[in-house]
Amino acid sequence: MTKVVSSIREAIELAKLHDGMSISFHHHLRNGDYVLNMVMEEIANMGIKDLTVNASAVFDIHAPLVDHIKNGVVTKLRCNYMSKGIGTEICKGIMKEPVEFRSHGSRPGDIINGKTPIDVAFIAAPTSDTMGNCTGKIGKSRFGSIGYAMADAENAKTVIVITDNLVEYPLTCASITEDYVDYVVTVDAIGDPNGIMSGTTAQTRDPVRLRMAQTAVKCIEASGLLKDGMSFQTGAGGATMAAAMYLKDVMLEKGIVGSYIVGGISSASVELQHAGCFKALQDVQSFDLGAAADLAENPNHIEVSARRYSSAVGKSSCMNNLDVAMLGATEIDVDFNVNVHTDSNGVIMGGSGGHTDIAEICNMAVVIAPLFRNRLPIVLDHVTTVSTRGENIDVLITEKGIAVNPRREDLKEKFIAAGLNVKDIRELKAMAEEICGVPVKAPKGDKIVGEVLGHYGEHVDYIYNVPER
Amino acid sequence: MTKVVSSIREAIELAKLHDGMSISFHHHLRNGDYVLNMVMEEIANMGIKDLTVNASAVFDIHAPLVDHIKNGVVTKLRCNYMSKGIGTEICKGIMKEPVEFRSHGSRPGDIINGKTPIDVAFIAAPTSDTMGNCTGKIGKSRFGSIGYAMADAENAKTVIVITDNLVEYPLTCASITEDYVDYVVTVDAIGDPNGIMSGTTAQTRDPVRLRMAQTAVKCIEASGLLKDGMSFQTGAGGATMAAAMYLKDVMLEKGIVGSYIVGGISSASVELQHAGCFKALQDVQSFDLGAAADLAENPNHIEVSARRYSSAVGKSSCMNNLDVAMLGATEIDVDFNVNVHTDSNGVIMGGSGGHTDIAEICNMAVVIAPLFRNRLPIVLDHVTTVSTRGENIDVLITEKGIAVNPRREDLKEKFIAAGLNVKDIRELKAMAEEICGVPVKAPKGDKIVGEVLGHYGEHVDYIYNVPER
Repeated sequence: MTKVVSSIREAIELAKLHDGMSISFHHHLRNGDYVLNMVMEEIANMGIKDLTVNASAVFDIHAPLVDHIKNGVVTKLRCNYMSKGIGTEICKGIMKEPVEFRSHGSRPGDIINGKTPIDVAFIAAPTSDTMGNCTGKIGKSRFGSIGYAMADAENAKTVIVITDNLVEYPLTCASITEDYVDYVVTVDAIGDPNGIMSGTTAQTRDPVRLRMAQTAVKCIEASGLLKDGMSFQTGAGGATMAAAMYLKDVMLEKGIVGSYIVGGISSASVELQHAGCFKALQDVQSFDLGAAADLAENPNHIEVSARRYSSAVGKSSCMNNLDVAMLGATEIDVDFNVNVHTDSNGVIMGGSGGHTDIAEICNMAVVIAPLFRNRLPIVLDHVTTVSTRGENIDVLITEKGIAVNPRREDLKEKFIAAGLNVKDIRELKAMAEEICGVPVKAPKGDKIVGEVLGHYGEHVDYIYNVPER
Repeated sequence: MTKVVSSIREAIELAKLHDGMSISFHHHLRNGDYVLNMVMEEIANMGIKDLTVNASAVFDIHAPLVDHIKNGVVTKLRCNYMSKGIGTEICKGIMKEPVEFRSHGSRPGDIINGKTPIDVAFIAAPTSDTMGNCTGKIGKSRFGSIGYAMADAENAKTVIVITDNLVEYPLTCASITEDYVDYVVTVDAIGDPNGIMSGTTAQTRDPVRLRMAQTAVKCIEASGLLKDGMSFQTGAGGATMAAAMYLKDVMLEKGIVGSYIVGGISSASVELQHAGCFKALQDVQSFDLGAAADLAENPNHIEVSARRYSSAVGKSSCMNNLDVAMLGATEIDVDFNVNVHTDSNGVIMGGSGGHTDIAEICNMAVVIAPLFRNRLPIVLDHVTTVSTRGENIDVLITEKGIAVNPRREDLKEKFIAAGLNVKDIRELKAMAEEICGVPVKAPKGDKIVGEVLGHYGEHVDYIYNVPER
């Protein structure tokens, strides 16, 4: 028996895909992904309309999606992240229904609990055997962990694996197994794995960001959490990832052995683990090719599903023992609410990813952000969009000082005792305004173009259209 | 956060176990398992009654279960195998409701599709971390694959891991992951791993059985299936396992490289894989400690869930590409129906295990059985209990000749062309009767004490009480 069919079209026909159904994609190839476009083009050619697309993230390489929306092929969109090219179009109000923005935790949660059922899941796989046992760990388009696709594979009515490296049955390192797969299709290339580095995962060399990263490590030291057994997460931003490098030096110097690093795993995280600073890496998404290669070889670098990573639907997740997380922000307000969805003009250019999950559960959630970008203050009275509620953010680190959430008086005292430059968040806001002036709030449209959902799938905020100026 | 609680009793209390609920156990420790008894004793002490016990198999070490049945603690029993000590008691009619005998494939199927929901699953784990990431691959009570427990863990409302080797979080080789586990309990010993060898997994030295095993390999050769890419399964019986050893010699001599061996994996299977005869081992249950050790170290020896192994509920299983299987029988009739549930007196002393799944799907299902045992013919007009329907059995090998199912005229021709000793199954029956006499059919009671369900969960046969004589 083999599940290999001749083309994407044949697989779609066998799946009996029809108007009104829901289909899904994962984003492990990030801006290098070819699969979403290939599939959507075929679907459009077949004349199928009114689809819901549930993609764990949408990047600018997926720009053809905009035409599919305009042509009525796609009438509903669910994702955890959307880069600016597509976000700009969505903010013009091209969709009747708002885009549903979930987190990396609530997306699998709502797939598993049945709120967002999937009819057909399309799984880009760097290696698959003829029965659909597949993995991201090997193959020319290797991207590492395939964690975000697991809930799709396990719950979709029909699962189609698309691969550019078909191997003999049985593949012995499968991450998604044959019992979940209906059809296998081979294509020339599922993507350009160099595109994995795109988006927000590149290392920074910016001295301001590097300084903030150093401060972040000082905060961890002062918090008392820097000890044997500590667990750690960095987001995908440059400054937060740089913090990992400074952390290594301190841990080696002090001979501290942490428990695990979780999340998107970069080569920087791998370096920490190899250096003996952490016992394990729990990898839901490999942020670069070095991390992907390590996942294939290092028994202490383990692949976790999005459910196991950060979903509230499971009995627990990697979040439940997480001590310290470094997070980014496009805006943060005096109540510590964080925006990672829109820029200061209200244009969609991101999404929660794991941000809201991490902040909700971890012990100390640290946001690292400069006071201003392009002469626009980052610390505001009110964020344009609430991605993560302020009650879940503990610390803000800027290049001009550290602010601590009043809910964490304990941390504030420790930071002051350690001689750190602690300021009230309103002071930081004033400093930003002194340099940049008080920003004029961008005009907000009256059409809801997006809804932000939180860790539990609960409503957090709306995103509105951006009026033309 | 930790899920470790102080005792089995505390875990049961936290799980809110109460009268009428359904609980489950797995049998990877076979006749060395301590966990079922420990848990049932605690439950009985707590005064909980009217439980359904869904155990993948029940061995004689579980004899205290008989008292729990008589005392009303357990009023319904589901299993895939039951050894003779308990089977004898069941055949006295001690239960109001019949025992439901499923197969290794239909048990997870009915758990997953909701026909047999589980309230509380008890998972014996040779190693677990504090969050319930657990495995059978390491630890003093290592038993290897934990494949039969996976459907329980993934679908039970509450999951309690019981371990005698608690390790720091995160365990990096987990087979069942934290997102499925509610509580973790440590005990002195979950079992005696030497008990794994018990039941039907010991190697045979009986010359009659060895000769049948040799004939089996000749049948594989003659069938045309002995070629590169062949896949193979042996049951747990001595003769069927011996066939694996002879197969090795032939494959090495001819330079044939098969695809995979699946099933319960023994050291004999491991030896074939190490010798290069097969590329991979797909292991749902490790039949001895050598196989368990290999699973921990050999990347081509992979652990598969019962769902992936042989369930009809998945998109496919390891069965779908299975070429040749060696199966046992306590009785086989002239229509090729096989009994592995009861002896010739009608006493329960086994169960389908994977028998019916394998026969249902694989290309060539070969039963190896002697013409008679203890002067009782094995080839009969009608088996006492139908475990596997004759339409799914292709070949019978006895020490006096080979019978081929009339549905497989193709095989018969090949065997004759190869000079094999092919006989009509009625001839074999006659030969047995010539030596042993025509057996007197054992009297059957009028109470149904068991129901045999097949690969798809469908009704196959009933088992009746055995009247006292």
